[in-house]
Amino acid sequence: MGEIVLAFDIYGTLLSFEAVIHELKRFLNDDARARTVAQTWRRYQLEYTFRLNSMGRYLTFLEVTRNSLLHALDDTGTSLVDKEIEHLMATYNRLIPFPDVEDALNQLSAFSQVTSVIFSNGTRGMIANCVESSTVLSQHKSFFRDVVSVDEVKQYKPAPAVYNYLAKCVGRNQSEMKDIWLVSGNPFDIAGARNVGMNAIWVDRAEASWVDKALPDVKPTAIVHHLGGIVDVIKQQLSL
Amino acid sequence: MGEIVLAFDIYGTLLSFEAVIHELKRFLNDDARARTVAQTWRRYQLEYTFRLNSMGRYLTFLEVTRNSLLHALDDTGTSLVDKEIEHLMATYNRLIPFPDVEDALNQLSAFSQVTSVIFSNGTRGMIANCVESSTVLSQHKSFFRDVVSVDEVKQYKPAPAVYNYLAKCVGRNQSEMKDIWLVSGNPFDIAGARNVGMNAIWVDRAEASWVDKALPDVKPTAIVHHLGGIVDVIKQQLSL
Repeated sequence: MGEIVLAFDIYGTLLSFEAVIHELKRFLNDDARARTVAQTWRRYQLEYTFRLNSMGRYLTFLEVTRNSLLHALDDTGTSLVDKEIEHLMATYNRLIPFPDVEDALNQLSAFSQVTSVIFSNGTRGMIANCVESSTVLSQHKSFFRDVVSVDEVKQYKPAPAVYNYLAKCVGRNQSEMKDIWLVSGNPFDIAGARNVGMNAIWVDRAEASWVDKALPDVKPTAIVHHLGGIVDVIKQQLSL
Repeated sequence: MGEIVLAFDIYGTLLSFEAVIHELKRFLNDDARARTVAQTWRRYQLEYTFRLNSMGRYLTFLEVTRNSLLHALDDTGTSLVDKEIEHLMATYNRLIPFPDVEDALNQLSAFSQVTSVIFSNGTRGMIANCVESSTVLSQHKSFFRDVVSVDEVKQYKPAPAVYNYLAKCVGRNQSEMKDIWLVSGNPFDIAGARNVGMNAIWVDRAEASWVDKALPDVKPTAIVHHLGGIVDVIKQQLSL
């Protein structure tokens, strides 16, 4: 194990939802509506994970993803036939990495003091499908030493249990939480990691500023505007 | 205690958010934006409660309400001065009941086999302010035998602990959960109550159908389109 563990979130961090919007546009012939359905789908997907956590219940992320799609379709008054719904679900298995991912992973491979893992709400199957279907990710498979899925804990981010499980998987104890650096585009994930004492780099591609106030005193350790920005954060951390 | 306990949620069930939209319109001179800010505020307010539950953290609903307002303003690119923000927060202490509340409470008062309580995410102070500032609610104060605030549990709906606390407050044990009927306009609250074995009446004023699928097998016990609809549900339940 290196001195720093980088734990990469995938949905909204390594993988973009543009493929979903693209497929919805094909079915709906309406760009604005396609974007609304995609956003609503993602919103319910996350809301469901938070609510399941709250209720002490668990359904796999595959089930959550399907259920939240059906809710989003109802909510936006959008009719799709079963075949189209299955097609959208399949799209979720071949989401495309953001354009900045390949270069960032190439650069990060150079750091021998860094261990990288994937850390996701997705099931192992969903994660594997996305990695296999992406040329960039499949070529960098060895860059990721491990895949940590919340499915093994049966709770979702930002439950402390899933970050603690991540720590266990990468061989870190309570006093070493700061060695783990979450990399995520999702503010709730950043706050969740900081809540248990991890460091967290927020990938703010939209260059919005940090406005999340669920825990108003919690801020990301660092903010980058593209994934390659992590290189400088690590160099500084390792005093290189 | 009667044979049935009706536990009334307040925000979005007895109390409407129209007063918030009204005040926002005054500040923003833009009806559509006022509605968007109000919706975004409410959305973050609930998201924060679910996320705090998930993180095992607690801030009072007053703090959550303020923090989510600031997030909603940032998110919608809306600038308000401190005085306006304080004014909006104060509006939350004098939300106005939906027009169907007075008649429903009058009708429900006739049932001697029914005990009614208020059951809310709000602090006791917030609930008391809303009850006092509303003529309808203050005149019906004796209709509510108790006020149950999640603040006493330091978790938010839909955590099982808060519904179990409600049960304890109304003197019901695990085998008597079905005697408690939650009345709520909020689907996450309905699912939360059903999750612990309570009955739950969804107040679906917008006449949307039940499309929530966080727990896809969970449905409301009954759906009413106005608060007075509860009367028939109770009559049926009591075989009157």
